[in-house]
Amino acid sequence: MLDKKAKNKINKNKKNTQGKKTAVVLFSGGLDSTTCLYWALNKGYNCLPLNILYGQRHAKEAKSAKAICRKLGLKLISVNFKMPWLYGATSLVGKGGVIPNESLADIKDTSRIPSTYVPARNLFFMAVAASMAEALGAEAIIAGPNAIDFSGYPDCRPAFYRPLAKAIKEGTRCGVSGKPIKILTPLLKLDKGQIAKLGKKLGVPFALTWSCYNGGKKPCGKCDACKLRAAGFKKANLKDE
Amino acid sequence: MLDKKAKNKINKNKKNTQGKKTAVVLFSGGLDSTTCLYWALNKGYNCLPLNILYGQRHAKEAKSAKAICRKLGLKLISVNFKMPWLYGATSLVGKGGVIPNESLADIKDTSRIPSTYVPARNLFFMAVAASMAEALGAEAIIAGPNAIDFSGYPDCRPAFYRPLAKAIKEGTRCGVSGKPIKILTPLLKLDKGQIAKLGKKLGVPFALTWSCYNGGKKPCGKCDACKLRAAGFKKANLKDE
Repeated sequence: MLDKKAKNKINKNKKNTQGKKTAVVLFSGGLDSTTCLYWALNKGYNCLPLNILYGQRHAKEAKSAKAICRKLGLKLISVNFKMPWLYGATSLVGKGGVIPNESLADIKDTSRIPSTYVPARNLFFMAVAASMAEALGAEAIIAGPNAIDFSGYPDCRPAFYRPLAKAIKEGTRCGVSGKPIKILTPLLKLDKGQIAKLGKKLGVPFALTWSCYNGGKKPCGKCDACKLRAAGFKKANLKDE
Repeated sequence: MLDKKAKNKINKNKKNTQGKKTAVVLFSGGLDSTTCLYWALNKGYNCLPLNILYGQRHAKEAKSAKAICRKLGLKLISVNFKMPWLYGATSLVGKGGVIPNESLADIKDTSRIPSTYVPARNLFFMAVAASMAEALGAEAIIAGPNAIDFSGYPDCRPAFYRPLAKAIKEGTRCGVSGKPIKILTPLLKLDKGQIAKLGKKLGVPFALTWSCYNGGKKPCGKCDACKLRAAGFKKANLKDE
């Protein structure tokens, strides 16, 4: 039942962070969550990077996540949840769906949510992070949604995170005891250009991060994630390297 | 990656429920969730019973869940999530903790939350259910928390479910498209006696359900779950059989 390696990693992280301010960082190994991780480290947090696999075809992110953690000397906590209902419900999971190539960066109309939307993904991610944060006594969860260049996903908007923070406060022991877990979303109101600039400032190793939805050997350059990323670096007048 | 058996079950359930009102029922095989399942069937829902394992020592519930579904001719969807941080964070997971024997039924003071509390469990359960409900086009999630005889768990209270429902609405495609998933908690304001009465009325096979936290061959009769259950049946003047 128990993955001993994961348990050891957690105990090590827990030991290293006793008495210091600690945060669970939702960390996929993409540009946004890597920028979040560097932001959190810069703010003085002891970081517990949490990588969640759910069958995504771009699981290659996880390799990036590992490489970045190795560089930083952090232990990556990686969990793999099988949710069979996601097969067929999103083009990001399994081999069936086709990743759309048109750029969706400007879609604000949520009724046009693209096929790469994963049902209730950020709710699920935040629930897992809340469980881990409370269990290990972390004071914050740090996540990287952004509501500007956000592909039209409903669970990247403040309208979702506000009531969720309230639910996490009311539904946890630490919350009702007066020490609610802080929900920090430092990228929420930044566009991709601003995220690239912030990443540059914080020393994010762009070349190690992975955004492409297609999970091939190299980024496809055609999917929405690749296009948003390229546009961001162009806007910031930075090289993606 | 994909569990074919689970996928087939889901496809079968999906096929059987096309064009009818469908609900994901969080279903542990305990008294409360079994009463919920019977309540939902009685209300005319096509039910997708969802059993979530997270390392709980009373995983024996899952056997009850299977037996009850077999009796009802329903396909049980069972998922097993490994969350190593729960080991040591709750007496319900692993072998380390001791299940408290005192009756906690009267605890309303949430600062005295017992060791059987599982960090963010109901948030996690609801997130998984929301993912499944949206992916399969179910219109409701049915869950069995109750805020009267509730062992003092913060995530069994309306104060938690209210903002959570809002987050699920705002964080899902169906929610922002005007068809939010209904969150139904029919037992929320019932005490255990009323739940036993409702179960009796609906034909719940009490003998097949499992509540005991200790997961032995027979219910221990000493843990909070056993005590709450016994007191409920006594209050309802019913036999637990």
